Amino acid sequence: MVFVKTHDISELNQELIGKEVVLGGWIEDLRKLGKMSFITLRDVSGISQVIVKGELNDNLGEINRQSVVSIRGIVQETKARDFAFEVKADEIEVLGKAIHPLPIDPIGRLESNIDTRLNHRALDMRNQKTASIFKLRHHVLQSLRKTLADKKFIEITTPKIIGSASEGGADLFSLDYFGKTAYLAQSPQLYKEQMTIGLERVFEISNFYRAENSHTGRHLTEFTSIDIEAAFMDYEDVMNVLESLVVSVYKDISENCKTEQESIEHAIEIPSVPFERITYTQCVDELKKAGEKVEFGDDLLDSHLRIIGQNHPGFFFLTDWPMKLKPFYIREKDEDATLSRSFDLQYGFLELSSGGTRLHNPEMLKERLKEQGLDPNQFADHLKTFDWGMPPHSGWGMGLDRLMTTLIGIDNVREVVLYPRDPDRLSP
Amino acid sequence: MVFVKTHDISELNQELIGKEVVLGGWIEDLRKLGKMSFITLRDVSGISQVIVKGELNDNLGEINRQSVVSIRGIVQETKARDFAFEVKADEIEVLGKAIHPLPIDPIGRLESNIDTRLNHRALDMRNQKTASIFKLRHHVLQSLRKTLADKKFIEITTPKIIGSASEGGADLFSLDYFGKTAYLAQSPQLYKEQMTIGLERVFEISNFYRAENSHTGRHLTEFTSIDIEAAFMDYEDVMNVLESLVVSVYKDISENCKTEQESIEHAIEIPSVPFERITYTQCVDELKKAGEKVEFGDDLLDSHLRIIGQNHPGFFFLTDWPMKLKPFYIREKDEDATLSRSFDLQYGFLELSSGGTRLHNPEMLKERLKEQGLDPNQFADHLKTFDWGMPPHSGWGMGLDRLMTTLIGIDNVREVVLYPRDPDRLSP
Repeated sequence: MVFVKTHDISELNQELIGKEVVLGGWIEDLRKLGKMSFITLRDVSGISQVIVKGELNDNLGEINRQSVVSIRGIVQETKARDFAFEVKADEIEVLGKAIHPLPIDPIGRLESNIDTRLNHRALDMRNQKTASIFKLRHHVLQSLRKTLADKKFIEITTPKIIGSASEGGADLFSLDYFGKTAYLAQSPQLYKEQMTIGLERVFEISNFYRAENSHTGRHLTEFTSIDIEAAFMDYEDVMNVLESLVVSVYKDISENCKTEQESIEHAIEIPSVPFERITYTQCVDELKKAGEKVEFGDDLLDSHLRIIGQNHPGFFFLTDWPMKLKPFYIREKDEDATLSRSFDLQYGFLELSSGGTRLHNPEMLKERLKEQGLDPNQFADHLKTFDWGMPPHSGWGMGLDRLMTTLIGIDNVREVVLYPRDPDRLSP
Repeated sequence: MVFVKTHDISELNQELIGKEVVLGGWIEDLRKLGKMSFITLRDVSGISQVIVKGELNDNLGEINRQSVVSIRGIVQETKARDFAFEVKADEIEVLGKAIHPLPIDPIGRLESNIDTRLNHRALDMRNQKTASIFKLRHHVLQSLRKTLADKKFIEITTPKIIGSASEGGADLFSLDYFGKTAYLAQSPQLYKEQMTIGLERVFEISNFYRAENSHTGRHLTEFTSIDIEAAFMDYEDVMNVLESLVVSVYKDISENCKTEQESIEHAIEIPSVPFERITYTQCVDELKKAGEKVEFGDDLLDSHLRIIGQNHPGFFFLTDWPMKLKPFYIREKDEDATLSRSFDLQYGFLELSSGGTRLHNPEMLKERLKEQGLDPNQFADHLKTFDWGMPPHSGWGMGLDRLMTTLIGIDNVREVVLYPRDPDRLSP
């Protein structure tokens, strides 16, 4: 059994011509032409041609496509158009056989629907478009973290198992925790707020959970959230952080992931700044003009956001929502207490992020909890931290999976999550 | 209300002398000396002196220590020994009051035990030693990801909610998932193996869960795991990846986090390579020489590891464990089928990481499952992927929290986790 490959295919270069390499990869095509065979070999990095001649060719036998092989051979120049180099094989070992036919066609000639692909996700990863999506996701994660660290945000890990139903408590998964009831966190909201008292600027990129019986292309029960919270910042400040973060990710990916962009057949366009800022009140006016029955204080329905999204394609901020539509921890505007220091980041009709300035006065927090029918005693652990010198602070959470769909140019978050979870899907 | 600060304290410099700045931070000390007051102000980045004179001083009133303030003033040179600069205040606003007395002393003059500190974790973050631990954790996370990305590993996100009890299924938290039973994942083991079929080299750094009723300084029910899996690598190869990763983190932190090292009062020593490799069989011999009753095939107890750890302080690999002590997915050695291609990374008696070469032949996998009393049908989703061209692969998982304790020089993982979870601790 050969384990080690000496080179990824993308590492083959002029200097290796005439030298021996060991490649490892999957047989995408195998054509026998008399005394020679031509293998198209793919690994994670690229694609190469392998020539098989003589005794090795006579003894080659049948190898199903998508079987994984190790190939020892000599690098040489090629006349084939699609390849930069080829390898003349001296030894071929089948490391793992692929059955025939495979349940989905990884070359993508026969398209499979998303459900079938998710049921065979590992094999779907041999499709170059799918693999490229997850290579891009990797780059997005590195880019997000680098930008936030450069902006002096400190990465934290908050608990996902929590003892009380924070933030109101709807749609939480519950579990038995050594005889007590525990819940899976929907967000790091209260913990990240607490951390501003010592670390000032924090971020987290992690999985969170929502037990919502939704069946749409943009809801999952397990999702990845990017969260920040910053002391000494107002909501306008964290909106600016968010805007520059989104643009820097787009820029980074657009400039540094050319191959993957080709694979997904989608050119990533860097959005221009500043993103448009529209107030909730302006939004209601726009909807009224479009003939919708909506009044100040009404929540905006999906149908409303689709109208607004058509008027404002791409990224824009929807700001200054009515206080009564916002969670207890959001702070009012000084000049109008019916309005909140809050915003959503929209991509057309799609909500990507929600954030605002937080209330940091403990007495007012207690009042707001009561107003919203919540019991301050349930929040005692959180409220007491506001007596220890809690700074004014603001923050937001953004759905990574939704952000990825804007980047890839598709509309189902299941395309950008390896093993998505929804009410109907708990496996594989 | 002032939100914005113009500078972090660490950003004060010679060029700012005579210029106005707005600082935001916490009052660590306030001394009134007649017509002047001296404030020691701390923010996340450092510490400065603030001078208050004249009318502002007359109207200063009482401000409890650890209250958070905004201070507008002029930067000037200082005669005070402990500071590089000072700020002469023109305006002071208390943004958040701290009660007096506080439940723990954040200056650390009065030491609190770990339980009391965890019960007041946000306030504990005002202790510079604690804050430094979490700043270091942030740097460790960035360093780990950078090194793995540089080694061409692709970051993945595997599901934490899983439909069947993988890996044997002991000690799993279970939850109701829309009428079905689901579990919280203990590791990304099966998913990361599957991903090698398309992405070849993958890693994940995420929370995983173990419903184990352990009460030690090294077990939590929610922990952060660093996992890698790599196609075309044998266990020796992924041991080398692990060794160089650990050394690069130590080096990075040692060289780039001087301030935090001073705060934690622990000099980080870069371990020398190669780490010692000791086989399980050598280990048993050592234990016999030490008078222990232990035979080949026995699992090593904590008491055994403490003896071995005394003989081999620091990092070492413990390799070639008996097959019967290993999970179903670990592969045997070619030359002796009773031994496995496996290893643990130890730090003295502390197990940091466990890994090995995986079995990738589906028929042998089914046999191993049966031998271990597990039902192959329970693993059908996983096993079928081995018919699609599964490459030979190896990997490991390492506890981030445990790695942090070696770096910080402490022995309780609760010190390096913001809000730890154990059988007794579900809040805050």
